[in-house]
Amino acid sequence: MPLNFVIPPLNSKLSAALQTKIDQKTKPQGSLGQLESLALKIGLCQNSLTPNLSKPCMLIFAGDHGIVEAGVSAYPQTVTAQMVANFLAGGAAISVFAKQHGIDLLVVDAGVNADLSNHPKLIDAKIAKSTKNFLTDPAMTAEECIKALQAGADLVARQHQAGCNCIGFGEMGIGNTSSAAMLMHRLTGLSLVRCVGRGTGLNDGQLQHKVTLLQRAATKHKDVTEPLSVLATFGGFEIAMMVGAYLKAAELGMLILVDGFIAGAALLVAHKLYPHVLDYCVFSHVSNEQGHQSLLQQFNAKPLLNLELRLGEGSGIAIAYPLLQSAVMFLNEMATFAEAGVDC
Amino acid sequence: MPLNFVIPPLNSKLSAALQTKIDQKTKPQGSLGQLESLALKIGLCQNSLTPNLSKPCMLIFAGDHGIVEAGVSAYPQTVTAQMVANFLAGGAAISVFAKQHGIDLLVVDAGVNADLSNHPKLIDAKIAKSTKNFLTDPAMTAEECIKALQAGADLVARQHQAGCNCIGFGEMGIGNTSSAAMLMHRLTGLSLVRCVGRGTGLNDGQLQHKVTLLQRAATKHKDVTEPLSVLATFGGFEIAMMVGAYLKAAELGMLILVDGFIAGAALLVAHKLYPHVLDYCVFSHVSNEQGHQSLLQQFNAKPLLNLELRLGEGSGIAIAYPLLQSAVMFLNEMATFAEAGVDC
Repeated sequence: MPLNFVIPPLNSKLSAALQTKIDQKTKPQGSLGQLESLALKIGLCQNSLTPNLSKPCMLIFAGDHGIVEAGVSAYPQTVTAQMVANFLAGGAAISVFAKQHGIDLLVVDAGVNADLSNHPKLIDAKIAKSTKNFLTDPAMTAEECIKALQAGADLVARQHQAGCNCIGFGEMGIGNTSSAAMLMHRLTGLSLVRCVGRGTGLNDGQLQHKVTLLQRAATKHKDVTEPLSVLATFGGFEIAMMVGAYLKAAELGMLILVDGFIAGAALLVAHKLYPHVLDYCVFSHVSNEQGHQSLLQQFNAKPLLNLELRLGEGSGIAIAYPLLQSAVMFLNEMATFAEAGVDC
Repeated sequence: MPLNFVIPPLNSKLSAALQTKIDQKTKPQGSLGQLESLALKIGLCQNSLTPNLSKPCMLIFAGDHGIVEAGVSAYPQTVTAQMVANFLAGGAAISVFAKQHGIDLLVVDAGVNADLSNHPKLIDAKIAKSTKNFLTDPAMTAEECIKALQAGADLVARQHQAGCNCIGFGEMGIGNTSSAAMLMHRLTGLSLVRCVGRGTGLNDGQLQHKVTLLQRAATKHKDVTEPLSVLATFGGFEIAMMVGAYLKAAELGMLILVDGFIAGAALLVAHKLYPHVLDYCVFSHVSNEQGHQSLLQQFNAKPLLNLELRLGEGSGIAIAYPLLQSAVMFLNEMATFAEAGVDC
């Protein structure tokens, strides 16, 4: 399965000039903490001393999961399609937060198990109605996996062409913490127990059941180790599309906002394929889903927020977005010591 | 020194109804983490199931400190007045962040050691040109302290009357981490070493010098323990004004945003005088100034952000403000499971 992305490391040529610009602002050096490293990163990503955030956009990839029939979620599969409708109607958390911050929200049907009505903000990229149950079969074929990657990449290219330079990826898919846990387990080597969490809110018994089932799946597919095969075996269509989206966004030099556990698992696949994808990523938050902390450690990531969110949908991205704006604004708008006539 | 504030505990009558409203939103229960507790708090503070943030405002209290002559800061005293001008001209971090979020910014001359030019956003409430050096004398007289408290209270009352229900207090004052450390040390009983930090950026030797000086001040005024006397002895005019501002805002049932180390030390005084002031407070962030973490523990506070800021000015408040908006917006705008037709 050949992939043709080209993702170079971030060009750090401007690093010293950006740091000097940051240090000349009227504040003690370093006193804006993570906002300073964020400003530096955005400047490097755009190779500019005056970076900007243009047409910020969020793609929410939605897909259903065959594994749900085994009882790994507190919610029925029907909720995926219902939540897609809720996103589009403006009633979901991400709808509210994206609107709050002027982030354009597009919902992508990657593989929802329903016939969805047309909507100007809904993109039909359905690979199939739900993945297969990976307790018995690979979730998707290799061809479906590549098709999903390509669809994700194409959607990002379209946003980039429309002027977006800052993009985030959310997801919706009942059962997808199971997929994410399997990807994490197989690609990091961490024990399954450390990778499996309560998802939408399992109790202790249900969590134990989820672990048992996923252990069985891990054994069933014990020889699958190559990243794209791992993705096809345990992933979801929304996750595979996200992988392609990350890779294309990095290739295009866009600033990428990373959400929580499922988004992180998708990034793990992308990172195994193209390590420098990380150079373009800002980690929005550490979620309360067990495993996310360990997952972030894999990336040496220092997330912006820790608000005990565990919702998915890209909600952490939307909530963190104003921090990116703050970073860009202080870099562009604050006075220097010289301009303000402040002794330093 | 009599104070006449009336600060009752928060009315928790609506608690159950607010929690039910939160739990009916289309998301797994609890999945918005700290935003949910924030929504609950704002609802209780306003005694409303549909709270709102009206005319958010930030008062920055500025004052100079006699202790600066002893060499406790990396910056000269002149910087206080220069930064006031910078706030007003829009070039400071807080100017940029307040503008970003539509927060009205007013600068209060509580005791700057300069004659400041008039400006529509500058309020003259100068008690004196700088406090005295508390190595030799109390920083201010009891009368000055009460006058500052009253001025802070009056300014808040004026904002409240103009329709503001959500207020934050920032500060500017070269040398004021020394005052804050002394207040913290004396009012919490924690060792001075745990309360003293690098402020605007002292090196190891300068930090040691600061500790030595403050130790001498602690010994000199070793019998001062009553909160208002501690405030008068070690405080600053901007800190005393902040104390009065906290108390009045709580009395008026306003939502109070708490910034970093100096703002926290001022709150400590207010809290010793009226414990229920805390009921109205939201802690915006934990700063990188040594001592702030321990200070927050005194309040059992769970700050919203941890971005390694150490700037003061109310910058943490401005940066955290969109989280308050998110909390209010999800509570008011998200669909319920019933409204959205989502299975639960």
